[in-house]
Amino acid sequence: MRILLVNPNTTATMTARIGTAARRVASASSRIEAVNPPDGPVSIEGYVDEAFAVPGLLRILRRSQGQWDAYIIACFDDTGLEAARCLGEAPVIGIGEAAFHLASLLSNRFSVVTTLSRSVAAIEHNLQRYGLSARCSKVRACEVPVLALDDPASGATARIAEEIAAALREDRSEAIVLGCAGMAEFASELSSRFQVPVVDGVAAAVRLAESLVGLGLRTAKIGPYAVPAPKAYRGQFEADSF
Amino acid sequence: MRILLVNPNTTATMTARIGTAARRVASASSRIEAVNPPDGPVSIEGYVDEAFAVPGLLRILRRSQGQWDAYIIACFDDTGLEAARCLGEAPVIGIGEAAFHLASLLSNRFSVVTTLSRSVAAIEHNLQRYGLSARCSKVRACEVPVLALDDPASGATARIAEEIAAALREDRSEAIVLGCAGMAEFASELSSRFQVPVVDGVAAAVRLAESLVGLGLRTAKIGPYAVPAPKAYRGQFEADSF
Amino acid sequence: MRILLVNPNTTATMTARIGTAARRVASASSRIEAVNPPDGPVSIEGYVDEAFAVPGLLRILRRSQGQWDAYIIACFDDTGLEAARCLGEAPVIGIGEAAFHLASLLSNRFSVVTTLSRSVAAIEHNLQRYGLSARCSKVRACEVPVLALDDPASGATARIAEEIAAALREDRSEAIVLGCAGMAEFASELSSRFQVPVVDGVAAAVRLAESLVGLGLRTAKIGPYAVPAPKAYRGQFEADSF
Amino acid sequence: MRILLVNPNTTATMTARIGTAARRVASASSRIEAVNPPDGPVSIEGYVDEAFAVPGLLRILRRSQGQWDAYIIACFDDTGLEAARCLGEAPVIGIGEAAFHLASLLSNRFSVVTTLSRSVAAIEHNLQRYGLSARCSKVRACEVPVLALDDPASGATARIAEEIAAALREDRSEAIVLGCAGMAEFASELSSRFQVPVVDGVAAAVRLAESLVGLGLRTAKIGPYAVPAPKAYRGQFEADSF
Amino acid sequence: MRILLVNPNTTATMTARIGTAARRVASASSRIEAVNPPDGPVSIEGYVDEAFAVPGLLRILRRSQGQWDAYIIACFDDTGLEAARCLGEAPVIGIGEAAFHLASLLSNRFSVVTTLSRSVAAIEHNLQRYGLSARCSKVRACEVPVLALDDPASGATARIAEEIAAALREDRSEAIVLGCAGMAEFASELSSRFQVPVVDGVAAAVRLAESLVGLGLRTAKIGPYAVPAPKAYRGQFEADSF
Amino acid sequence: MRILLVNPNTTATMTARIGTAARRVASASSRIEAVNPPDGPVSIEGYVDEAFAVPGLLRILRRSQGQWDAYIIACFDDTGLEAARCLGEAPVIGIGEAAFHLASLLSNRFSVVTTLSRSVAAIEHNLQRYGLSARCSKVRACEVPVLALDDPASGATARIAEEIAAALREDRSEAIVLGCAGMAEFASELSSRFQVPVVDGVAAAVRLAESLVGLGLRTAKIGPYAVPAPKAYRGQFEADSF
Repeated sequence: MRILLVNPNTTATMTARIGTAARRVASASSRIEAVNPPDGPVSIEGYVDEAFAVPGLLRILRRSQGQWDAYIIACFDDTGLEAARCLGEAPVIGIGEAAFHLASLLSNRFSVVTTLSRSVAAIEHNLQRYGLSARCSKVRACEVPVLALDDPASGATARIAEEIAAALREDRSEAIVLGCAGMAEFASELSSRFQVPVVDGVAAAVRLAESLVGLGLRTAKIGPYAVPAPKAYRGQFEADSF
Repeated sequence: MRILLVNPNTTATMTARIGTAARRVASASSRIEAVNPPDGPVSIEGYVDEAFAVPGLLRILRRSQGQWDAYIIACFDDTGLEAARCLGEAPVIGIGEAAFHLASLLSNRFSVVTTLSRSVAAIEHNLQRYGLSARCSKVRACEVPVLALDDPASGATARIAEEIAAALREDRSEAIVLGCAGMAEFASELSSRFQVPVVDGVAAAVRLAESLVGLGLRTAKIGPYAVPAPKAYRGQFEADSF
Repeated sequence: MRILLVNPNTTATMTARIGTAARRVASASSRIEAVNPPDGPVSIEGYVDEAFAVPGLLRILRRSQGQWDAYIIACFDDTGLEAARCLGEAPVIGIGEAAFHLASLLSNRFSVVTTLSRSVAAIEHNLQRYGLSARCSKVRACEVPVLALDDPASGATARIAEEIAAALREDRSEAIVLGCAGMAEFASELSSRFQVPVVDGVAAAVRLAESLVGLGLRTAKIGPYAVPAPKAYRGQFEADSF
Repeated sequence: MRILLVNPNTTATMTARIGTAARRVASASSRIEAVNPPDGPVSIEGYVDEAFAVPGLLRILRRSQGQWDAYIIACFDDTGLEAARCLGEAPVIGIGEAAFHLASLLSNRFSVVTTLSRSVAAIEHNLQRYGLSARCSKVRACEVPVLALDDPASGATARIAEEIAAALREDRSEAIVLGCAGMAEFASELSSRFQVPVVDGVAAAVRLAESLVGLGLRTAKIGPYAVPAPKAYRGQFEADSF
Repeated sequence: MRILLVNPNTTATMTARIGTAARRVASASSRIEAVNPPDGPVSIEGYVDEAFAVPGLLRILRRSQGQWDAYIIACFDDTGLEAARCLGEAPVIGIGEAAFHLASLLSNRFSVVTTLSRSVAAIEHNLQRYGLSARCSKVRACEVPVLALDDPASGATARIAEEIAAALREDRSEAIVLGCAGMAEFASELSSRFQVPVVDGVAAAVRLAESLVGLGLRTAKIGPYAVPAPKAYRGQFEADSF
Repeated sequence: MRILLVNPNTTATMTARIGTAARRVASASSRIEAVNPPDGPVSIEGYVDEAFAVPGLLRILRRSQGQWDAYIIACFDDTGLEAARCLGEAPVIGIGEAAFHLASLLSNRFSVVTTLSRSVAAIEHNLQRYGLSARCSKVRACEVPVLALDDPASGATARIAEEIAAALREDRSEAIVLGCAGMAEFASELSSRFQVPVVDGVAAAVRLAESLVGLGLRTAKIGPYAVPAPKAYRGQFEADSF
């Protein structure tokens, strides 16, 4: 099984870290490659970053169609997820939705701990769209920027732990979803420490992608995810046209 | 990985068929055993059957705690799912919820085709509780009883196919969920025929159970799924007490 | 008018107390009998207890069909309510739903005070299913177990009063619903003390049952509450089959 | 028990008919008086009629405070219900809400059959506000004006029966709510004919009012239903001021 | 463009102040007249005041039909809005809905600061009906009565500012809606002070009314806003009949 | 007042037509310029086209900040609306949201008629996000591609008229929203023909933009629409960085 994990930002060190995290949880029979586009923001924090990350993401998916059994979008905002689903039949999983769905199988209510409060509204809108708003008690921000997560000086784990403690104390939540691809490696330790399920979206997406491929399930191609009709694209995006 | 699939009705031939369907989609490293309780209805069609199926189901789960990595409840109503989650830390997956979650990753909207119209309201309530009502356009009934599904004379596949055709024509659905454990073996052929994803809950649950186990995720044990406090049970259920 | 009140747990002293509370509010023309099954848990606190309480409850209803004009299920979780409705045409009222409906006629928003926090999610799901979630500001737990409610040493009334005070201060609620059959006798005093409507489900259910019987209204028998089709039940539940 | 039923339109013959229907279902110990204001529209069909019916209705309630144990507003739009609740502590029940609540105890889903399609939106808004929208499959109009309901030449019962038949065939409803005070006398015959619960709001409100009074429950007087603060009213409404 | 702004209470000084506020934001080509009915409460605080304000409001609209291009109802409860829409084709805008709609174009979530807590539930119901509940984080009350707003001794601006500060600190709101026509003149200063959008409904309604008129858009006259059929009104309201 | 209308597709003839339609409804004091990006798809039909239209759109907004009082995004999907709001304080209005908000002021329920069924889900999600789903009865597609709308041979107006007729007959809608910028010029004729409000988003957005500017209201800059923090963008998008 070949799974392409796309980190939609352009920070290769983060891509490598996410790839490692993904391979750690993948089945033996899976080959996971982690890539990122050359074009776009170094991290995705808010709607503008999302907008400039999507073209690069879609190009990777489009050019590689047929070579991979499934795709993972490794940004917790599920950046470009719906456009990505239009590009082919291979399943595409966002790490945000993956985490939400698995957390829903383990708990009645969960809280999310993400990076910056700027992203809270976008995550809430995704939950609303997926239908899982009522399963999420609260989306919390630890206010550590994405690229500082792996800098020990940022105090990221301490800040995340504080928010988890607050969630368990105040939100009536029974499980935690980590709200950034860059938090993948903290999940296991935090779960041990707080004795609640702590769901990382990267790991969740790897397993869900393997599940769909293993079952021969592919993206629905009638309705909103149908392959786009051929159409002229102009200027900088001329080559991106179908 | 050891997964115990419990068919909560008492029809051993159906249990065997579901077990076969489950093993067909399981990973090589999984050992799946399919069992059913000795006590309870021969099929589950409506709230009364559910009520008398749950004690037997829970006994199986309780007595086997520690021997299995995950449990699957192989009835599309997700009979007894929440009580089952209270019995231990090993994940418990209902085939209804499994199918709904996977269909949500493949389509914007799906329809369900179940057996009898008597069960439609219960399935709708499950969708509401899981949060996925808005993802399901319609729950349809083919009006073939559970135990007639594998009787060629019942015309079950023709009836299911009619409802799928109606769903694609009238519901604006892009994918189909088969709403009974006994329909597992029809999924692949129906998907080929209608060229849309057809999701079978048994297969979906096997893969989701493997996913949760593979990730070391366990049921949240604070809140509603906490292990029951010790308490006297009386009469016929005396031995079922904690 | 003959009303059978079923306490679905097996604690006869509690059944007697509930019966007394019910008779105190019943019309002169009503004959109320309070019973409990011989089989099942001594109190219902969480999903597992519910599961083992339902068979005994349903047997009582089934065997007594035709002898009673209405049935009351005297557990605030409305244990087994939907299955019970399938057994006949006589109305079946849960004390939880009864309290929610009456509180909705008296206030814009109410809070619930129940026993253990373990039960909060189940009550919230009932509110969601009945449609009345938006009318309930919050479900609070006083953390006194069911069987300690009538033990003066438990400090139950003080704890309930604390939660009512908190509800009026913090929830913007205007009325209170007592969330356990065992709290029935506290309603009147608490209402006087806090000068807000305090609704007890047992009393509410008695009056609603009398209302439905008085109006000749019976349970809808098409759709999900239709009488089950005849079917074999096996083992311990063989005699429970239709 | 003294219950004042107020028909908020000014058609005394209709008031008399509703009063008769109410007394037919009341308990022996209840004294029901039916009145209507001298000021306002002869029937209530739409928002403008509602607006001009409310002052007369409120005057009746206000002047009679202390003389009655409960009030019923006998218009299916529940005209002026919330203002009426502010006027005192005695419970006030609208016949629309009464019917919706009782139908929710008897069925999973019901349909409403009202008079004119002009009123459908207002009824839907009431259902939304009470929280019971999801319990109502559809609000249907038979297109017979209120004052023609008791004119045999209007063919009212035939038109209502047609809509009930359509509801049972198309809406997946299991019970029917009659959506006008003037339909009270048809309920029993329609229920026999269609073999489903047919709920009349007048009867439902009488029983609910008796229930609340019998339980000593009164309207919450903190929050939106608090008694208005004293304030000058001018002109035609000078005397209506507190 | 001729716009009639109707203050539905009977306090002429308040009407004059609102008129001034409205003219300050109107386009040069608009002629705005502010009036109030002679009959009804001096301020609208709660459901009873609303009920006695509506007849006077409707009379003004009805008698002036044809003379104005649009109407504004200058009470934040949108008193009588739906009945007003039935009276003709000219658009009718409530200042509450106007403010909610414009705030939704400027922010993801807003808070409302109104006068008395008694009115909070009515505003919440309006938000629910318009569909904008999820856009409003919280409705807050500053507990200053309507007619004290322009009395410097009331400390109104300080109280409103306190609630705005609390909203920005606690509600995760990004914009503020002022919840009373009498607060119109505070908007600009509060917006400067808190550096967030502060939306006044009077100003919002003027611009929306101009927008609809400018586009030739008129109220839908099929369905609930159709002109009432001719019908007798009696007593005090005889002349109000169609 | 200076308003920049951005057609996010790259078809200049369509831009010109939309600009003409916008100027026709603008106030005398408004200067409206219509532009489109040089980079991107010639029309926007589905998620992939949206993704490649947004960078060009955002560049136009960003480079022109300070030169315009408000921006209109002239694509009915409200392409890139949230990212656009992050770029500055000047209000940004999508033509979809503009039409939904104005239609909500004129009718209880409306239907949308858009171009291709591929776009229906995206429009439904926008309605859900704005909160206005319950105000929209149905989103209908006339199945005429965007660029064929002004080709008389496409039969576009006839197809749109058919869907309007169906909406009025089947959806219980009272008003129509035209679901594509390219339909702007049909609104007036269709409104006359069907005698219901027909709302065009381009016109609606012009008036709403003028309203917000006239009132001095600007986009909330705390929370999700805050200006992005400075950050490196790479490759093709290097110059797009803050």
